[in-house]
Amino acid sequence: MEFTVQQIADLLQGEVEGDNLVNVSSLAKIEEATTGALAFLSNPKYESYLYTTGASAVIVSDKLELKKPVTASLIRVADPYSSFSTLLQYYHQAVLASKTGVEEPCFIGANSEIGAGHYRGAFSYIGNNCKLGQNVRIYPQVYIGDNVTIGDNTTIFAGAKLYANTVVGKDCTIHAGVVLGSDGFGFAPQPDGSYKAVPQIGNVVLEDDVNIGANTTIDCATMGSTIIRKGTKIDNLVQIAHNVEVGQHTVIASQTGISGSAKIGNQCVIAGQVGIVGHISIADKTTVGAQSGVSKTVKESGTIIQGSPAFDYKQNLRAITVFRKLPDLQRVLEELKERN
Amino acid sequence: MEFTVQQIADLLQGEVEGDNLVNVSSLAKIEEATTGALAFLSNPKYESYLYTTGASAVIVSDKLELKKPVTASLIRVADPYSSFSTLLQYYHQAVLASKTGVEEPCFIGANSEIGAGHYRGAFSYIGNNCKLGQNVRIYPQVYIGDNVTIGDNTTIFAGAKLYANTVVGKDCTIHAGVVLGSDGFGFAPQPDGSYKAVPQIGNVVLEDDVNIGANTTIDCATMGSTIIRKGTKIDNLVQIAHNVEVGQHTVIASQTGISGSAKIGNQCVIAGQVGIVGHISIADKTTVGAQSGVSKTVKESGTIIQGSPAFDYKQNLRAITVFRKLPDLQRVLEELKERN
Amino acid sequence: MEFTVQQIADLLQGEVEGDNLVNVSSLAKIEEATTGALAFLSNPKYESYLYTTGASAVIVSDKLELKKPVTASLIRVADPYSSFSTLLQYYHQAVLASKTGVEEPCFIGANSEIGAGHYRGAFSYIGNNCKLGQNVRIYPQVYIGDNVTIGDNTTIFAGAKLYANTVVGKDCTIHAGVVLGSDGFGFAPQPDGSYKAVPQIGNVVLEDDVNIGANTTIDCATMGSTIIRKGTKIDNLVQIAHNVEVGQHTVIASQTGISGSAKIGNQCVIAGQVGIVGHISIADKTTVGAQSGVSKTVKESGTIIQGSPAFDYKQNLRAITVFRKLPDLQRVLEELKERN
Repeated sequence: MEFTVQQIADLLQGEVEGDNLVNVSSLAKIEEATTGALAFLSNPKYESYLYTTGASAVIVSDKLELKKPVTASLIRVADPYSSFSTLLQYYHQAVLASKTGVEEPCFIGANSEIGAGHYRGAFSYIGNNCKLGQNVRIYPQVYIGDNVTIGDNTTIFAGAKLYANTVVGKDCTIHAGVVLGSDGFGFAPQPDGSYKAVPQIGNVVLEDDVNIGANTTIDCATMGSTIIRKGTKIDNLVQIAHNVEVGQHTVIASQTGISGSAKIGNQCVIAGQVGIVGHISIADKTTVGAQSGVSKTVKESGTIIQGSPAFDYKQNLRAITVFRKLPDLQRVLEELKERN
Repeated sequence: MEFTVQQIADLLQGEVEGDNLVNVSSLAKIEEATTGALAFLSNPKYESYLYTTGASAVIVSDKLELKKPVTASLIRVADPYSSFSTLLQYYHQAVLASKTGVEEPCFIGANSEIGAGHYRGAFSYIGNNCKLGQNVRIYPQVYIGDNVTIGDNTTIFAGAKLYANTVVGKDCTIHAGVVLGSDGFGFAPQPDGSYKAVPQIGNVVLEDDVNIGANTTIDCATMGSTIIRKGTKIDNLVQIAHNVEVGQHTVIASQTGISGSAKIGNQCVIAGQVGIVGHISIADKTTVGAQSGVSKTVKESGTIIQGSPAFDYKQNLRAITVFRKLPDLQRVLEELKERN
Repeated sequence: MEFTVQQIADLLQGEVEGDNLVNVSSLAKIEEATTGALAFLSNPKYESYLYTTGASAVIVSDKLELKKPVTASLIRVADPYSSFSTLLQYYHQAVLASKTGVEEPCFIGANSEIGAGHYRGAFSYIGNNCKLGQNVRIYPQVYIGDNVTIGDNTTIFAGAKLYANTVVGKDCTIHAGVVLGSDGFGFAPQPDGSYKAVPQIGNVVLEDDVNIGANTTIDCATMGSTIIRKGTKIDNLVQIAHNVEVGQHTVIASQTGISGSAKIGNQCVIAGQVGIVGHISIADKTTVGAQSGVSKTVKESGTIIQGSPAFDYKQNLRAITVFRKLPDLQRVLEELKERN
C-alpha cells in the first residue's frame, strides 16, 4: 500500500509543508525511519530527530516552529500523536481486511453456519453445529470443536484451539496457540493413592471485546462456565483454571495463573507472573504487583497489593527494604544481646 | 441426548418422586440449573435451592425430608453425589465415544498401524512406523512423529505435538497444544562465548493413565527417557525438562517448572508456579506449596515445604509473619541501640 | 541405521578391541545400555559399569587398563567423550537430513520461494511473498504468514506459528508450538474505564543460530522489531514482549518473562521463572538467578543478582539465611526490650 503525502494529509485534515507528491508505504518511529516511511513528532524531547530523520514524511504539530532545515515533507495537524494513532488503526484494519474468502483444504462439519465476509484459512477445522458471525477471521490450523458460537468481527489467529461448546463474543481477538475449554484440573483421590478424573462438562465463555494472548490456556468449568467478561485483555501464557470468573475491563499480564473458582473483579490490573489461589474473590479495581501470590480475598475496591504472599504494597516495599539489611540487623541484635 | 427422569432413575437404581416422564438433556448445579437440566443436592447447606431451582429434576438423598413444596421431579438415591458423579462419567464417555472414524484429509506415514475403534481428525498427522492401540482418539491437527507408540483408549486433543520416538501408555489424556519430546535445553559453551547445541537423542515416555494439561511441554532426554510414571496428573503450561523422572500418582499444578534430571517421587503434590532445580530428588508424598523454589533434595517422605527457596512450611509461615513486621522490628532495634 | 563396530572405529579413528563385526544401532548411557547399543566411558567413576554393561560396544580411552574381563567390544580413542559427542552430532544430522521433500496437502501462497533441499510437511502453511532459504525444514502444521523471510538450514518443528513479516536467520531451530509475532500487549485506557488496542504493526527478527524452545511466545514490536540476536538460546514457555531486544549468545531458561522494551545484553545467563520489567537494560554477561524479579537497570557487566526484587546474589543469600531465623530474632528482640 503506497500513498502520497497529500493523500495522507487529506485523510488527517492536515496541511502539507514541502513535497506533497512524495510516496510513503510504511509507518516508523522518527529515530528509526528510512526512505518511504512516515513518522510523527509529538514529544518535544525527540525534536532533534526531525532534522536528521530518514523518513520521507513526518506528522508534526501545526504550532511547531522549525529550528533547522528539514528534508522530509511535513504534515501539520493539531495533535500529531492522535493523527498517527488514526493511521495505525487504518493500517491494522487494512491488513486484517485483506484476509477474506476460503483457502482449501479446510474442514467444516454438519449444521455449521458462518456469516458473510469471513475468512477461513487452509487446514482450519470447524466442527458440527457451530454458529459463526459476520466478518469472522479463522486463520489456518485453527480448531473449533462442536457447538461453538463466535460473534461478529472476531479474529482467531493461527492454530488456536477452541474445545466443544465454547462461546466467544463479538470483536474478540484470540491469538495463536490459545487453548479454550481444556479440562479443568479436577481429580478425586482414591483410597489406593491414585486419582480419578472428575469429568469436566462445562464450557468457556468470552464476552465481547476480549483479547487473549498467544498460548494462553483457559479451562472449561466442571459444570457451568468459566467466564471472561466484556472488554478484558489477557496477555500471553496466562493460565485461567476451571470456573474462574474475570470481570469487565480487567487486564492480566503474561504468565499469571488464576486457580479454580476464583472471582476477579472489574477494572483490575494484574501484573505478570502473579498467582491467585482458588475460591477467593478480588474486588473491583484491585492492582496486583508482578510475581505476587494472592492467597486471600480482597474486599476493598482499589486495593494495591504486592508480594508472595501478597499484602499492602507500601508495607511490602518497606519490609523488602529492611529484608536487604537483615544481616546487619542480626549483627546489631547480637551485639546488644552480648552487652545485656 | 435427552432422557426421561424415569430412565435416569432406572440407571441409578433410584425412586422417582413427581413426574417421571419429564425430559432432561443436561447436567447443572442446583443454583444455576434451568428447564431441561438435572441437578443434585448433597450438601445440606444448599437445601434452600431445592425449593427455588429451575431444574427439571434433582437427585436427592432417600432420607431427605422436604420442608416446602418442590416443582422439580426428584430422584431419590442412597448417595446423591456419587450418583451424580456416575452420570458425569456416562456423559463424558458418551461425548468421547461420539468421536470415531476418519475425517479427511489426514496423513499417515509408512508402516504405521492403528487399532479398531479409533478416531483420526482432519489435518492430523501420523509419521512412519507408529503403533497406535484400540479406541485411540487423535483430534484434528495433532502431530505424531515417526516411531511413536500409543496405548489403548488414549485421547490426544487438537493440535498436540508428539516428536519422534515418544511412547504413550494406555488410558492417557493429552490436551491441546501439549508438546512432548522437544529438544532438552542443552548447550555447551564454546571458548568464543557462543553455544553449541548438545544433540538430544532420547525420548519422552508417559506410562498408563497419565494426564497432561494444555500447552504443557515435556522435553526429550539427552539420552534415555524423560519419564512420567503411571497415574500422574500434570496441569496446563507446566515445563518438564530433559531426563526428569516423575513418579506414580503425583499431581503437578499449572505453570510449575522442573529442571533437567530432577527426580520427583510417588504421590507428591506440587502446587502451581513452583520451580524445582535440576539434578535433585524429591521424596515420595512430598507437598510443595505454590510459587516455591526447591533448591535441595528432599529425603524424607511426607515433607511439606514452602517458599523461595523452600523450607519447612510451618517455619516459613512464621518467618513470613515476622517479615511483614520488619519495619517495626528495625525501629525497636534502633531505639534499643540508642539506649545502650 | 546399523553399523559394525569397525565402521564406527574407522569414523572415529579408533582401535577395536574384541569383535569388530558386532552391529550397533543406537547410542545409550553405559549404565542403561542394552544389546545393540553403543556407549562410552569417560568419567572414571563409571568404570564399574564397563564390566557389567549390556552395551554391544563401548568407546573407551586408549589409556584405560582393564581390571576385569569385558563382554562388549571396545573402541579405543584419545578422548571418549569427544568421540561420542561426534557420533551424537552425526546421528542428529542424519535424523534431520532424513526429512526432505514435500508431503501433500500443504499450502503455499503467491510469490513465495523456497531454496533447494527443503522439507515441507503435510498441513504446513506458507503465506504470500515469503522467501525461504536452502535446506529449510518446515514440519507439519507449521504456519508462516505473509512476507516472512527464513534463512538457510533453519528447522521449524510441528505447529510453530510465525505471524506475517517475521524474519528468521540461518541455522535457527524453532520448536513445536512457538508463536512469533503475536500482538504486543498494548492497550490505551479510555475515559469510560475500557481499553482500546494500540495497533501493533512491527515484527519479530531472529538473527542467525538462534534456538527457541517449545511453546515460547515472542510478540511483535509496536513499531520496528522485537529482536533476538545471533546465537541466543531460549528455552520453553518463555515470554518475550514487544520491542524487547536480546543480545548475542545469551541463554534464557524456561518460563522466564521479559516485559516490553527491555534490553538484555550479550552473553547473559537468565535462569528459569525470572521476570524482567519493561524499559530497563541488563548489562552484558549478567547472571540472573531463578525466580528473580529484576526491577532496575543493571549497568555493570558481569553482575550476578538474585531475589524478587533482585539484588546482589551474595547479599541475597545472607538475607535469606537470616529470614529463616526471623521468629528467633523477634523473640530475642522482645526479651531485650523487656529488660530495657
